[in-house]
Amino acid sequence: MKRYAIKISYNGKNFSGWQKQPGGRTVQGTLENVLQLLAGHPVTVCAAGRTDKGVHAVGQIVSFDLERSWDPQKLLLAVNANLPEDVSAIKAFDVEESFHARYSALWREYVYFIWTAKTCYPHFRDYVWHRKQEWDLKKVKQACRCFLGEKNYRAFCRKSECPPNASRTIYKAEIFTRGDLVWFRVRGNSFLTNMVRIMVGTLDCIGTGKQDIDYLESLFEDKAERPNAGPTAPAKGLFFWKVGYPSSLL
Amino acid sequence: MKRYAIKISYNGKNFSGWQKQPGGRTVQGTLENVLQLLAGHPVTVCAAGRTDKGVHAVGQIVSFDLERSWDPQKLLLAVNANLPEDVSAIKAFDVEESFHARYSALWREYVYFIWTAKTCYPHFRDYVWHRKQEWDLKKVKQACRCFLGEKNYRAFCRKSECPPNASRTIYKAEIFTRGDLVWFRVRGNSFLTNMVRIMVGTLDCIGTGKQDIDYLESLFEDKAERPNAGPTAPAKGLFFWKVGYPSSLL
Repeated sequence: MKRYAIKISYNGKNFSGWQKQPGGRTVQGTLENVLQLLAGHPVTVCAAGRTDKGVHAVGQIVSFDLERSWDPQKLLLAVNANLPEDVSAIKAFDVEESFHARYSALWREYVYFIWTAKTCYPHFRDYVWHRKQEWDLKKVKQACRCFLGEKNYRAFCRKSECPPNASRTIYKAEIFTRGDLVWFRVRGNSFLTNMVRIMVGTLDCIGTGKQDIDYLESLFEDKAERPNAGPTAPAKGLFFWKVGYPSSLL
Repeated sequence: MKRYAIKISYNGKNFSGWQKQPGGRTVQGTLENVLQLLAGHPVTVCAAGRTDKGVHAVGQIVSFDLERSWDPQKLLLAVNANLPEDVSAIKAFDVEESFHARYSALWREYVYFIWTAKTCYPHFRDYVWHRKQEWDLKKVKQACRCFLGEKNYRAFCRKSECPPNASRTIYKAEIFTRGDLVWFRVRGNSFLTNMVRIMVGTLDCIGTGKQDIDYLESLFEDKAERPNAGPTAPAKGLFFWKVGYPSSLL
């Protein structure tokens, strides 16, 4: 068996998320079907980060094993020739057996796009949260700094899926703007279910003046629960952007 | 009767172009239906530039007359509430009776997007020409300068639709790049059918080394015909971007 990694991008609109599930069209299922077709044997694919229904990916990394050896360039072409229009393989890599898309990752980065004007271009509609209310960007940028470091993110996780240890480390949390487009870029060691979307929903509470910075600080306390944080922002604004690995591995 | 103008944006993918035609889903037809519904009388809409099947628009301007007076802000909301997902009204204007979206226009600007990497993100797929071959950008930029000024564009027009006078004036013709994305921005007094797409197809012949600058120069000569120019680049990379009017009018 030989291990490979592929960087993939997908439009989440018509997928029930990454993870394979009976009766749902998933990215994992789609990719595994294509690889089984090419390899002639069942293939199990593992991703750096599982994305929810409707969430997009630009630089998702997946790893898997194939029985025979492939030239990565040929593997890339063969995979793309068989994938549907809403998934693309961007790059293929020959990797060591010790490489694992999920466990080898040092950090993951997500980007969330918000469109703040009253009207929105139809070309953006599937890729942004069309938030017609303006944000106080100074306050939101200040709030972003509260996310940095190791904190308890229990209030930022879908309740039914919260692990016993909800402590996560955020390395970067920044707001960028260009015209009416605002985007939130966040990098962390790992993320809980819905975590980025709840971070954005909470930033929205602060940006629209419903809450202040003290409120955000209180959400990291031990007694904080999911309902204390802001709402879960829509899936379609979220992109799984990038993954970092030790340079010796990828 | 009171005249209004609206800036509209549309995703051309599922339209048979701007112009109303029997049996085709068109942007003009869609917009006229919405306006008739709101106004309670038939409305004829005129656009700054008619776009072909599959061509997008970011800042198309349309003008029309309504029997009763509307606050432009309310008109904008009402129109958007009734338009399908692939068309948006971006801004509405109260205009003088002398304003005409087509005849008052001083210039039109188009942008054509080309994706030059071997693999393409699915989010871009409907909005770029995925040209897997790289362009010699220095040559293409040099070629762009040949378009400037008043020239005979007969070789750059769909043959069956070429008017007796095919002379057009180009004010700007520029190439921009960012990573694997290349775009061509062109501004002119008016454009012939397929003109921008044939300009891009011709730039492609130069960028990929099939033709040189002398060839491009020869296409403006009186004896040049449509088959002498390059192929018509795909519709999906083309955006009708912007229109200029005298500042007293819009």
